[in-house]
Amino acid sequence: MKILIKNANLISMDSIREKFEEKIDILIEDEKIKKIEREINDRVDKVIDATNRIVMPGLINTHAHVPMSIFRETVDGYNLQDWLEKKIWPMEDKLTNEDIYNASLLSFIEMVKTGTTTINDMYFMTEDIIKAAKEIGIRLQTTRTLMSLGNDGEDRIIELEDLINKYKNTDERITFNIGIHGFYTSNDSYIPKCVELAKKYELPIHIHFCENDKEVQDIKNGYNVKSPVELIKKYFKGMHVILAHSVVLEDEEIKELAKENIYVSHCPVSNLKLGCGIAKISKMLDNEITVTLGTDGQGSGSNLDLFETMKYTALLQKGILRDSKQMPAYEVLKMATINGAKALNLDDVTGSITEGKLADLIILNLNDVLTMPTNQIFSQIVYNVKGTNVKTTIVHGNILMENRNLKNINEEDICKKCSSIIERIK
Amino acid sequence: MKILIKNANLISMDSIREKFEEKIDILIEDEKIKKIEREINDRVDKVIDATNRIVMPGLINTHAHVPMSIFRETVDGYNLQDWLEKKIWPMEDKLTNEDIYNASLLSFIEMVKTGTTTINDMYFMTEDIIKAAKEIGIRLQTTRTLMSLGNDGEDRIIELEDLINKYKNTDERITFNIGIHGFYTSNDSYIPKCVELAKKYELPIHIHFCENDKEVQDIKNGYNVKSPVELIKKYFKGMHVILAHSVVLEDEEIKELAKENIYVSHCPVSNLKLGCGIAKISKMLDNEITVTLGTDGQGSGSNLDLFETMKYTALLQKGILRDSKQMPAYEVLKMATINGAKALNLDDVTGSITEGKLADLIILNLNDVLTMPTNQIFSQIVYNVKGTNVKTTIVHGNILMENRNLKNINEEDICKKCSSIIERIK
Repeated sequence: MKILIKNANLISMDSIREKFEEKIDILIEDEKIKKIEREINDRVDKVIDATNRIVMPGLINTHAHVPMSIFRETVDGYNLQDWLEKKIWPMEDKLTNEDIYNASLLSFIEMVKTGTTTINDMYFMTEDIIKAAKEIGIRLQTTRTLMSLGNDGEDRIIELEDLINKYKNTDERITFNIGIHGFYTSNDSYIPKCVELAKKYELPIHIHFCENDKEVQDIKNGYNVKSPVELIKKYFKGMHVILAHSVVLEDEEIKELAKENIYVSHCPVSNLKLGCGIAKISKMLDNEITVTLGTDGQGSGSNLDLFETMKYTALLQKGILRDSKQMPAYEVLKMATINGAKALNLDDVTGSITEGKLADLIILNLNDVLTMPTNQIFSQIVYNVKGTNVKTTIVHGNILMENRNLKNINEEDICKKCSSIIERIK
Repeated sequence: MKILIKNANLISMDSIREKFEEKIDILIEDEKIKKIEREINDRVDKVIDATNRIVMPGLINTHAHVPMSIFRETVDGYNLQDWLEKKIWPMEDKLTNEDIYNASLLSFIEMVKTGTTTINDMYFMTEDIIKAAKEIGIRLQTTRTLMSLGNDGEDRIIELEDLINKYKNTDERITFNIGIHGFYTSNDSYIPKCVELAKKYELPIHIHFCENDKEVQDIKNGYNVKSPVELIKKYFKGMHVILAHSVVLEDEEIKELAKENIYVSHCPVSNLKLGCGIAKISKMLDNEITVTLGTDGQGSGSNLDLFETMKYTALLQKGILRDSKQMPAYEVLKMATINGAKALNLDDVTGSITEGKLADLIILNLNDVLTMPTNQIFSQIVYNVKGTNVKTTIVHGNILMENRNLKNINEEDICKKCSSIIERIK
């Protein structure tokens, strides 16, 4: 299948290209970006006219819990621990495989409709999540959440290894990482076993880290350390690690973290909602840490709209530092695209519109009374574009949404199924 | 004209009614809400089926600069003073009456499309703004901005008084307040003249107040006071005053402010964008100050979507106080509706869906993959509804938008005109 996108205003996020280029044609052949030129006249199966449209890489969500779509707005008024223990965990115990599949479909549709093409998941019943991802056609990095809390810690590791082997080389869109729930739900003998698995399969580690004060206190007590950063150095030395949240960190700890091979997944909306605080992202950038963006699950993050996350990311740092010059818009765009790809170790294949990479891209329409006029394109995207401005979403060379229509998906039916799940388990 | 809204899920914001009621009929007769009952069968001119829809009061924006739509995304990287002096003021000098009219149309359309039915404006060329408001049909409280900076301070007062007299009793949707730009752009002899006008016509005062550190420092130096709050007590004693921003205030100053007849217009997005900081809204609520919401102009606030403002308002306080129990969603809904009406001294006629009040209301569709399932309705509206979920907007008994269509308005034409204005003056 050959698709030709004509006459695009291109934000490629490719560091070798201009940041913004007008009137560019993009040729997609099967799953890959074949050519990016001023004028392409190849014979193709489909032409998409992108005149007056923005074409940019699909966004990359580096921290989510995909099936938590059904828990939207269950958290208001709870802190993290109470919400999990009193509200979420009892409901999760009642979820069936079919529930996980349907709740995952809801999230994946939401992603496609708001311009996200790759998501990093951490949950359970992983095969049902993968089944939904393949049905929708998005790019998924997933895991079986590992923790030693409870009696099934060893079983979880076995389950994850089985999954890695079963899906190896079956679908380039499905990849794995080693998702460790957190230091506070693991222990000194369990973590090394997880690390061993990561080394054996050369996979990134994904872990909740310093999300709130209580977690940090629990880590300090449980591991007898002065700082959680010591655990990164002790267990993950040299490993590729995605740290979700990273809110409660002193400047000195950020400096130490920056020496390791870590990637921060900043989830500002969830962090505010749960009263965790605001991560020191500007300080992390000063220390050359690669910051990426996540929504967290909808239970705490409300939605999967990474355009909203970009806006919060930029505004919060300007506000708390009382400095409007913080967080240039283009840097925030990097966090939502190429930096996310780096975190998931997928930057060879996605995260920018580059010849030879996989075709993961979105087309935005900003010709609307809510977004006119456009005085500065990168600021416009960060501060005034919403997921609903995305008209077309392409993943792995497949058009998943065109003019906001998802083909072969009955959205209403999935909404109904998801509503009935939450009615049953709440 | 009689309009009957059938079978609504009603959030009336009327303190006497239940907070949420299902299957309610609402009868609108001419500009007023005539009846709210379980089942109304009157013969009417038009029936709107609101089955599975939310009906709630139109939102009230208590601080904006209506024609600044054309300055969207001009501020990134500037602080407030540099942005005004180097960027905005030179462009504003080039604006014609027709520019103001067209730029105002763009803002008013944006309001209608994102569910705001009343806006409090502070700008100049006021008659062109009024002309646009009447054309769209929204509720406008406006002024001619007063300041003694420059040589035309006295002329501005005369102009405003003339406007008040000219429009008196002409259109219930157009009201005035006395918009004083700020203490730092006025002086000790000018402010009392503005107050005199407010007293003469019994109108509220609207003023920028403690927006950033520099303003507060300028006030302290210019008026030789220890706190800007002293000026409220000195000049505005007993007056009804809308204080826009109110960011830079110590706890003790908030306590003192609470003793006056003041209403705070909280503009969180603009305050973050300009690096001003985060207003202490939770502290103000503790002191029983009536907090209302504003977007500020799109130059600093990016858009006029008060649903977004509600979300920032709630999340920021939870985040900075590290307390997820702060800011219950229903309190935030009050800020965007009935509190706004109180601030504009319009709570007798709008701000809630109440028999006898004017029919200013919106109808939301939440049956969408991006908002399903709805576990908690008030949280859903504050945290996960966007202006684009508004399907129908009614102001003063007139349907301004139905199923997202504005009748008799050529949106594309207005977008083009506004784009050409900014191209000309930038």
